[in-house]
Order: sequence, then C-alpha cells, then structure tokens
Amino acid sequence: MLREQVLGVAVKNIDRAPQEQINRLEKLGSATVHEAQKRVGHLEPTLRPVFQGARIAGSAITVLMQPGDNWMLHVAMELALPRDVIIATCTTPNTDGFFGDLLASSAIARGVKGLIIEGGVRDTRDLKEMNFPVWSKAISIRGTVKNTLGSVNIPIICAGQQINPGDVVIADDDGICVVPYENAKAVADAAEKRESFEGEKKEQFDKGVLGLDLYKMREPLKEAGFKYFDTNEDLKKGI
Amino acid sequence: MLREQVLGVAVKNIDRAPQEQINRLEKLGSATVHEAQKRVGHLEPTLRPVFQGARIAGSAITVLMQPGDNWMLHVAMELALPRDVIIATCTTPNTDGFFGDLLASSAIARGVKGLIIEGGVRDTRDLKEMNFPVWSKAISIRGTVKNTLGSVNIPIICAGQQINPGDVVIADDDGICVVPYENAKAVADAAEKRESFEGEKKEQFDKGVLGLDLYKMREPLKEAGFKYFDTNEDLKKGI
Amino acid sequence: MLREQVLGVAVKNIDRAPQEQINRLEKLGSATVHEAQKRVGHLEPTLRPVFQGARIAGSAITVLMQPGDNWMLHVAMELALPRDVIIATCTTPNTDGFFGDLLASSAIARGVKGLIIEGGVRDTRDLKEMNFPVWSKAISIRGTVKNTLGSVNIPIICAGQQINPGDVVIADDDGICVVPYENAKAVADAAEKRESFEGEKKEQFDKGVLGLDLYKMREPLKEAGFKYFDTNEDLKKGI
Amino acid sequence: MLREQVLGVAVKNIDRAPQEQINRLEKLGSATVHEAQKRVGHLEPTLRPVFQGARIAGSAITVLMQPGDNWMLHVAMELALPRDVIIATCTTPNTDGFFGDLLASSAIARGVKGLIIEGGVRDTRDLKEMNFPVWSKAISIRGTVKNTLGSVNIPIICAGQQINPGDVVIADDDGICVVPYENAKAVADAAEKRESFEGEKKEQFDKGVLGLDLYKMREPLKEAGFKYFDTNEDLKKGI
Amino acid sequence: MLREQVLGVAVKNIDRAPQEQINRLEKLGSATVHEAQKRVGHLEPTLRPVFQGARIAGSAITVLMQPGDNWMLHVAMELALPRDVIIATCTTPNTDGFFGDLLASSAIARGVKGLIIEGGVRDTRDLKEMNFPVWSKAISIRGTVKNTLGSVNIPIICAGQQINPGDVVIADDDGICVVPYENAKAVADAAEKRESFEGEKKEQFDKGVLGLDLYKMREPLKEAGFKYFDTNEDLKKGI
Amino acid sequence: MLREQVLGVAVKNIDRAPQEQINRLEKLGSATVHEAQKRVGHLEPTLRPVFQGARIAGSAITVLMQPGDNWMLHVAMELALPRDVIIATCTTPNTDGFFGDLLASSAIARGVKGLIIEGGVRDTRDLKEMNFPVWSKAISIRGTVKNTLGSVNIPIICAGQQINPGDVVIADDDGICVVPYENAKAVADAAEKRESFEGEKKEQFDKGVLGLDLYKMREPLKEAGFKYFDTNEDLKKGI
Repeated sequence: MLREQVLGVAVKNIDRAPQEQINRLEKLGSATVHEAQKRVGHLEPTLRPVFQGARIAGSAITVLMQPGDNWMLHVAMELALPRDVIIATCTTPNTDGFFGDLLASSAIARGVKGLIIEGGVRDTRDLKEMNFPVWSKAISIRGTVKNTLGSVNIPIICAGQQINPGDVVIADDDGICVVPYENAKAVADAAEKRESFEGEKKEQFDKGVLGLDLYKMREPLKEAGFKYFDTNEDLKKGI
Repeated sequence: MLREQVLGVAVKNIDRAPQEQINRLEKLGSATVHEAQKRVGHLEPTLRPVFQGARIAGSAITVLMQPGDNWMLHVAMELALPRDVIIATCTTPNTDGFFGDLLASSAIARGVKGLIIEGGVRDTRDLKEMNFPVWSKAISIRGTVKNTLGSVNIPIICAGQQINPGDVVIADDDGICVVPYENAKAVADAAEKRESFEGEKKEQFDKGVLGLDLYKMREPLKEAGFKYFDTNEDLKKGI
Repeated sequence: MLREQVLGVAVKNIDRAPQEQINRLEKLGSATVHEAQKRVGHLEPTLRPVFQGARIAGSAITVLMQPGDNWMLHVAMELALPRDVIIATCTTPNTDGFFGDLLASSAIARGVKGLIIEGGVRDTRDLKEMNFPVWSKAISIRGTVKNTLGSVNIPIICAGQQINPGDVVIADDDGICVVPYENAKAVADAAEKRESFEGEKKEQFDKGVLGLDLYKMREPLKEAGFKYFDTNEDLKKGI
Repeated sequence: MLREQVLGVAVKNIDRAPQEQINRLEKLGSATVHEAQKRVGHLEPTLRPVFQGARIAGSAITVLMQPGDNWMLHVAMELALPRDVIIATCTTPNTDGFFGDLLASSAIARGVKGLIIEGGVRDTRDLKEMNFPVWSKAISIRGTVKNTLGSVNIPIICAGQQINPGDVVIADDDGICVVPYENAKAVADAAEKRESFEGEKKEQFDKGVLGLDLYKMREPLKEAGFKYFDTNEDLKKGI
Repeated sequence: MLREQVLGVAVKNIDRAPQEQINRLEKLGSATVHEAQKRVGHLEPTLRPVFQGARIAGSAITVLMQPGDNWMLHVAMELALPRDVIIATCTTPNTDGFFGDLLASSAIARGVKGLIIEGGVRDTRDLKEMNFPVWSKAISIRGTVKNTLGSVNIPIICAGQQINPGDVVIADDDGICVVPYENAKAVADAAEKRESFEGEKKEQFDKGVLGLDLYKMREPLKEAGFKYFDTNEDLKKGI
Repeated sequence: MLREQVLGVAVKNIDRAPQEQINRLEKLGSATVHEAQKRVGHLEPTLRPVFQGARIAGSAITVLMQPGDNWMLHVAMELALPRDVIIATCTTPNTDGFFGDLLASSAIARGVKGLIIEGGVRDTRDLKEMNFPVWSKAISIRGTVKNTLGSVNIPIICAGQQINPGDVVIADDDGICVVPYENAKAVADAAEKRESFEGEKKEQFDKGVLGLDLYKMREPLKEAGFKYFDTNEDLKKGI
C-alpha cells in the first residue's frame, strides 16, 4: 500500500513470488493472466512495446522518478536481482528519454529482464539489437538530469495500476498485467485452466460454431429485450 | 440515416454493393477512393492497422457496442456473410479489448474479411499469425463483459464518419474510407480514372518536373499575392 | 528569429552548414547530437518515423502551411537543393494527408533526402518501397487543397522547436534534433567527443559496473538525504 | 443521411419541427431529452458553453466548414430563419476562432438563437454581453479565411453525432442533444412524462429513501453475485 | 493496498480519521496539505470543480464503477455516513454522466459532503443551486445503466492516486489531495506549521523582498553555474 | 532567435517597446491585434485565464523552467520592471503548480502586471482576490522544487509561439498574442485602423445586412462553383 509513499528512500530486500510461478505466468501472457484475475491488474494501453515480439515476466523493482530526472534508475539497477523487471513511473506525467543504450547495457549485465516505464526512452534501434525489451509511453531523444530524489522499491502507481515491489509483472505485445506476488500461484492455476478451455472453444469457433450458441446467448439476449428485424423497413415500422 | 438509431435491435438483411465493384475499390485503396469521392468518406486517423500490409474492402456489418461490452460482436458474427467486414463502434469512447483470437477464429470460419473497431483489441500476435486484418484505436488486454444491449446493422458513426449497413469500407495501411453502397460503381469509375492520371503525373515527377509547372501553379500563386525574395535580407527590407 | 514571420513569401537563397559537418551529424544521430547541444534542440516526440531504420541529416527547407492545404510543399520542392530536408508545419494543428507518393517522386527526383512534417501523410507503403524517409504526426488519407498561402524558408516552429531555414535537422528512429547551421561544426565536435566517452562507459556497464559507481553518485545521494532501508518494515518504522 | 454529403452546396428550404414542440423541448433541457430518447442523441462533452446559464432549442441550420475557414457561416446566416440554431463542424478537427462579435451581431439581427460549433470562437466577453449563447470546442483568437468551399444544410457529423438540417438541437450548461425533427412531439411527450416521474423520485430521495430501495435494486444485486462484508478483514478472509 | 481489489463486493464498516482532524485539514486546503505531506497525495489536475468556491474534507467512501454504469453509486449512498465524501472512479476511462440532481438529493439527504468522480456528471445548474460540491472529469448528458458490478469501499486508484476507504480527501478550487486516515493528525500539524510560516513569508514578499534573498538562493544558483549577462550581446559573446 | 538558447543564464537588460504603444495594444485586445498582424502571433488556445475579465499588455520577461521546478521564476522576479509581464514555459510539457499566492505577492510588490505560464498554478482563489491575472495550462496543487537550472530572458517557445524578451504580450479572455517589440507602433496603428472599420461593419450587421453582401461574397462563391438548391430532393437530383 501507499501508506509509506515517501520520496528519497530505497528498500533493499523485497518479497518475491517463486520463480516457478513467474515462469508459468510468463508463458501464459498478459491477456490470459488478466482474465484469470477476473479482469483486474491491467496497465493502461498507453504503454507500448518499443519492439514487437517480446514476452517477459519478472518480479517488480519499482521506481518513482521526478520529471526529466533518471537518477533513481541507477539506484534501482543495484537493487535488482537477475530475472527482475524494472518498472518506473514519474511523480507527474513526463515523456523524456529516461533510458537508453548505456542503461540497457547495465541492465543486461545485471541480468534484468526488461523495463516498463511510464515515460520515454531512446536508442531504440540499439535496444532492439541488444534484444532488451522495453515498454514505454514515448520514444524521445530528450535527455534527463540527476538532481532530484525519488524512491526505489516503494509502492507506485504506473499507468493507472498499483505495483508493489516484488509483484509479478507480465508484459508482451498486448500490454502489461500485474499479479500481487502472494497470488502468483493461484493466478497461474486459474490462468492455465482458462487457457485449456480456450483451446476447446477455439476448436468450436474454427468449425464455424457461433459464440451465440457456444456461450448460450440467444436466451439472455431475448430476455434483455433484444429484437431481430428482417429488414431496415421492418425496423422502421417496428418503431 | 440515424433516424432509426435505437439500442437493442439487429437487422438481418441489408443491401450490399455488387462484389465486382467491391473488388475494384479494394484494388484502388483507401486514399485514391477518398480522393475520387472528392475528399469525403475518410475515417479519422485515430484508427490504425494492428499489423502492416493488409488491404481489404467489403460490405459493412455495423455494430454499436456499449463501453467495455462486446456482446454485439457475437450477434454480428451470425449476420455477416462471407467477404463482409465488421465495423464496430461504442456508444461512448472506450479502448477496452473487445476482440481477440477466439473471435478472430470465429470470423475466419465465417469468411469475414476483417474488423474495423473504434475500441481496443488483444491477442495481436495471433491476429497477425492468423492473417486476420484489424484496424483499431488501441491494443488493450482489458477484457469485456456481455451485459448491456447495443445494436447490429443500424447506421453508426465510427471515427467521425457515418457508416450505413452494407456500405463499402476500404482499409489499408493509410487508413479507412467508406463508400455508400449505391455509389460503389460510380466511385470505382472515378477512382480508376484518377489513378490512370496519377500514373502520368508520377512519370512527370520522376523526370524532375515540378508540381508548380505540372499543375500550372505559378500564375495562381502570383495572383494570390505570393512573393519570392532572393534572400532573407531582401525579405526584411521588403517588409 | 520570427521577426520576419509573414505569410505569402518564399526566400530563394539560404545559408547552409558545410556538407562535411552535416555528414558528421548524420552519423552521430539525433540523441547524441541533442546531448552534445546540452539538451536543447529536440522536437517533441509526437513526430514519428513512417517506417523504421532511416537516419538522415540535411539543411532545412522550412515550410509553413495552412491547415488542410499543401500548396507550399510545391513551392518548397523548387527551392530545395539536393541533400536538403523539407521540414513543414501548419499555422494551426492539423493531421491531414499533405504528402503522398507523387510528391515523394518529385522529392526523390530533386534529390531531397526526406520530409519532417507536423501533419499527416499517406501512401505509406509506397514511401517505404521508394525508401523515402518521412517523420509525421499522423498517417491520414484525407487529401488537401491548394487555396491559401503560407510561406517557404522563413523561421518556423515545428513540434515545439524553432527551425530556421538552413539549420541542420537530424532524424532517426529516436526522433528529431535541430542544430543551428552556424553551430554545426562545434556541435559535431562535441558530439563525437561525447560518443567516444560513451564507448568507454558502455564497456564498464557491460562488465557490470554500476552507474552509481561509474558516475560517483553515492556521495551526492547521501548528501541529498537519500536513505536505504533493509526492508519495508524498517522503512515504516523509520517514518 | 450522408448519402448526399458533398462540398460546395447549400440547401435553401428545410423541414423543421413545429415551434410548439421546440418550445417544449427547450423547457425540458438536454439531459432529460437525452434520457427520453433512450440515451441516444447526445453530442460529445468536448463542446462547452462559452458562458453559463443559457438554455436554447431550435431548428438546426447545419454547416460544414473547412479548417481555418469560416466562409460557410456567412452562407448559413442568410438561410437561417428567426429562432433557428446554427450548428457547425469542420471537415477535419480544428480549433481556430471561426466566430466573433461581428458574426454575433449578424446572427442577432437575423433572429438566430445561438451557435454550436465544433471549432473555436473569440470575442467571448462580447458574446456574453450580447447574451448570444455559444457552445464551442475552444476559445481562440486565431482568425480564419474565406477561401475554400464547404456546405450548408446537408447532414453533418458534429461532436460524434449526426445532425440533419432542421433537427431540433437542445443546448444548455450540461451539453447538447439532438432530436430528429419528425420525432419532436413524441420525444417531448416522453420527456415530460419522465420529468414528472423525476419529481416524485426527487421527493423520495429528499426524504432519505435510498436508490437501492426506490429502484428495488437489492434483489438484482444479490442475483448478480454482489456481496457485502462487514469489514476489510472479512473481505480478505472471504477471498 | 490493492491486494484485495475485486469486483462485486462492498465493505460496510471502515476506519475513519477523527472528525477534529478532518476539520483542521478542511480549513487548510488541498495545496497546503499536499505540501505538508512533502508533495505526495495530489490527484491529477484533470478533475475540476463543477462550480467555484467550495472547499470540503471528509472520509472517503470509495467506489469502483464500470464504464457507463452507475450502479455502485447507489450502493455507496447507503454506506456513507454524514460528513463522508464519495470518491468514485471507473475500471476504464469514461466520461458519461454518472451523477445528477436525483443522486445529489439523495446525497444531501444522507449528509454526504460532496462527490469526487473520475467520470462525468450532469444537472450542473441544479448541483450549484443545491450547493452540493462535485469535482469531475467531464460534464456530460449521457446517461448510465445499472447492469454490471463494481465495488464499494475497496482501495481504488482515482486520477493517478490511490485512495483507501476512510482516507481523508480534501478538495477545493485548486484540486484534490488525499491523506491516509492514520496520518491525519500528523499531516494537519505539519500543515498548520507550514501555514504559519507562509504568513511570515507573505509579509516579506508584500514588502518587495525577493525570493532570491528570502530563500537565500543566490549562492546555490552560483554554485550550480548560473550566469548573469548584462545584455543579449554579452550572452552571445559569452558563448 | 534561438541561436543563443542555452540553459543556466539570465540577461539583465532587454529592449522594450515604448509604454505608449503597449498601452494602445492593451486597449485593443488580443484578437484585434492578432488580425492586425495578419493572423500571426497567437499562442495556442491551451492557455486559459485563471479568472475571467482581465486584459493586460506588457513587455515579456521570458522564463524557461525545468519540469516540476520553479527556480527560474524567482530569478525572473528580480529582473522584471514594473508593468512587465512574466511569460514562462518548460523544457518539456508539465502541468505542476509552479506559481501560487506567495509568488503573486512578490509579483504585485514588484509591479508585475501578470503571468502567462505553459504549466500549472495554484491558490487560484487568492489570485482572483488579489486581482493578479494569470493564464495557465492547468490548475494543480502539485508543488515544485528548486534544483535544476533553466534560463531567464532568452527567446522561448511558449504554446507554439516564439517570444523574445521584451516582446509585447497581450492577454485577455480570448487568449494571448505576441507582438515583436520593434513592431509595436506599426501593429497598434494597423489594429486601431482595423477596429474603426469593425465599428462600421458592426453597424451594418446590426441592421441585418448579410456578410455575403457586406463582403461581396456572392460572386466569388459562384466562381468557386458553389451551388444553391431549393430542397434536399433537388440536391439529390443534381448529383
């Protein structure tokens, strides 16, 4: 929770979900995990992947930065363990280029899996060549300073969603979903179950079965008062 | 027209343009058709293709959805004929993920050519692999419910443009254009004529001929009071 | 400066930076040049490349257009020399499709290197095939007219940045930077120097050295009052 | 309908709703009329009144303008009858100042009741002093030209809603609603009926009766699976 | 925290700050409280008062609604105690008119002090006349349904800030600030202290003392490398 | 011009227009001055007055701030002479509350006429009571720091318009216009002339004369191909 939201602090040790559960969530992807959580945990679609095709999951190292200031990303880099994901936001909306090839080199050297940032990044061609996946709000050449304190590993709100340090973040081409670390196993269970159902459903759809029949929607539609008309003329008369 | 705009209805049978005309319009593309219509019929550029390289044209199955609710897409799927294009909007702006791989499977099985949606979609990697073209306002993992009625095959306003059921929608990397179904032949004629002129013009441009000369703009510029100055200093003196 | 901002004029001859300096700046890229200029000169990140992978630099032929009117682009085409870059904005925000395959043919025939436009473009598939790089605010099929005068080769404000005719504009996947033409050599010198340092830094980062150590940030952090806590519980007690 | 959407035309004579019905709708206001129409007909809330406190209804004189060009407003002024409302939009989004004190003088002299414009206006202090009500998307000093043709009295799409010439537009502090002219009486009937119910409901609410009871929502909530918990601790256990 | 974020639930009993502390915070206003909290707790400035001049503080009854659906506001009304403030957001951005004169009557009858809503409201003239203060993202006539479950009195994220049930929200013409309920006294203490300093500072400023001197900024500016030049010509030479 | 744009500097002495000309421009207002300048010099309509009814003109003290940092406003306060107007922007878009009652006290004590800021302000009720006019992009309680250098009295770009130190800025309810200081007399002459014509025109409009006749537009409309139809049916036949 944000009770302890405060600027100028970092927390060194955080709880994380078991790596096995993180691996399961990564395989499932952001949309399936989101559904399995009963449609909570999605970040706003304003964050987009810098390059297509990556899918990652990892424990969140959370970063709260000041606008136009990337000082805290350096603090985060030290606290991240291999396989962690850095997720950063700003105290006020900002699209400057907080992250580029140098910090990506550092992240890769430290084993960080990727970056999610409610801000801008640059050196995007390098990021793609280095295969370091990044989700951001903007691509911007505008550089940043290192003058004003933020915090690392406190709860943050990023793209409309609260992220606690250690929460599992799953990111791919469709977007980003967060799972509270203590729920990782339960959500992975539910998501795998859901996915197996999806396979069956897909088979039906492939055969041409309609959602109206598969989900038994004809009766509910009727009960809700939905009406079919043969033609537009009939509709006009019907009104 | 929207005289019969009403929620909770679907029209089964709609007028369509002849397939031959639709094929001609598809070949011409959205920008050329838009120009041939004397610059009307364009949808706002907020709708973008989920993947590059597709170009489709088809008769519109129109869908009016409620925010965060994709119930009506299932109704539309039954009413669509092979080669139709589903075009959906919402009663109020919304970017949730109304459409994903399951509905794409259904659409492909029914022969639907593509989806245009003033809303969000997900499973974008699957959509690309299935080669099912989609134009949307957002990519979002956020799922939708099936609780509140909209309508299918009534006139809608999508991305600032009115679409009647059966109108021809042409979509490609540049955007989307709508042609009233009864105008399909006339517009295709005008567009093909225009395109042949474009070929001639392109040849001239390739040779280095200037638009100023090709379009005979020097005289109109002068008449409108346009003035050339040799240098910035001359300009300053001239004022 | 904009002292001489006026509609309905074009300046034929403009000062340019030496081609050698432009070549150096092109090699360095927009982000590095921006940093070397001490973080000034960036255009807002609302302008994005139509296709990925291009990097250009050239002398600016500046264009001030009216909304929905591309007349001035034709005037610009005549005044551009080979290797110039056309950079256009509008008297009021507008996203119509001011530029397409025909004007691209003309630009290529005249040796123009690319287009930067605070507006929309179309025929994007052609632009990519012709390998004519464009940065724009939108992709739009909506065509334009040729009715109202703007100006060519006067100072303009494009994406929040002033561009004087002849200034060097550098554009790539990361964005766009402008360098006053008389500063081209000094900025190229500073940027090359910076880049060599970047190489050294990258090596250190690749080895796992932290930014905290490389940039000697630990002391400044402490002085600014930054505090580390072992756990979240410690943090709570600390407050 | 937009079948006849075309640039460069004006229609002199249009159908209108009876003045008596327009008067009834004006008294009811935009929100009540919108509800009586079963929640269709609202314009997007991006249009706001220039000054507070006005409420008008009138027959729509529709105007389609080009960006930065107010030529068509002059054409509209001649075709408007006393008590009409001019409603204008643009072929492409634009916020320039299309309308000011001079056109307001003209409108008042012609008996026009007010202006709704998906664009900008200026001289707002004068508009308030003249008591000429205006709803607009922006307030902007930027002037417009008279160079490019639009149309008057053709169907337009304004703020996401289709308006046919002669439709009744109702505007007040809450926003704007359109009623097809042939439905004016039926909608006024429904709205007055609704308003009388609202009076009864308001009495109940004033007494402290809850919506849950007044609308008999407790059962539906339960059926939909809604659950009450005494405390947050209970909620946590319940999950 | 959001660990227990879930749809379809309401919590009846919540912790609140002592009324005495709430009263103190109300008197201090949103900006002063925000500063006393060391610049955390502000809601984004997208929420604006429907009418000017109100200032309220109260315990938060939190509401999570579905887009275009105000069902949960009715649930909230029952759980609110006199002097509480209802603060509502949506699962996905939405500007529909969730609240109007009827719900305001209900709120007043129940003793609710005001409404903060990341959505739209209507009947704004009535709200002003009833003197029921509302802060909203939009004013919209578009009505809502009561079909899909949200939750009441769970932690929500509203305008970029987390609000827990019972937190103190302070709202006035400048915006909205939230104080965790357990911090109410400490923050009120700090804010009052700050305000007394502000009085002293204001006196100095009124006398013409400069901030540069009052805050002793001349030395820090110099240390940071700030330079004064007599004229623009000197500045140019200096570079 | 921006040739000397650089961070960390202030220029003490700037050129100003004669006070007599500033007074004339103030009386004329932003829209009239903008037209007299042939429609250049307008700032984007995103800047709005904090309270209605003020109209000011003064010499610009220009301020370039860093996001979330109001340090430079204090520097500006010392350099401003009585009757000057402070106009501030940010190196990157930001809506924080840079200015409030304390700085307003300081400004009033120094004789500053008003503030124009492409950012946020707070204490708006105080600003109104103190009658200190402010135009801003947002109203925000979020406070700022004093950590990173910007500049004072260098050319800036504010709301899409370049402002040089000493330029005359005219601001009122309609918006903001800038006049280069050396043009002040010429623009005031042109604006007064224009205004006298406006008086004559207004008289004509008040009598019911149409713009079509007053501006002799009937012939140009015809030449441009504009066509009148008696009814919608005629229009359909005509196509």
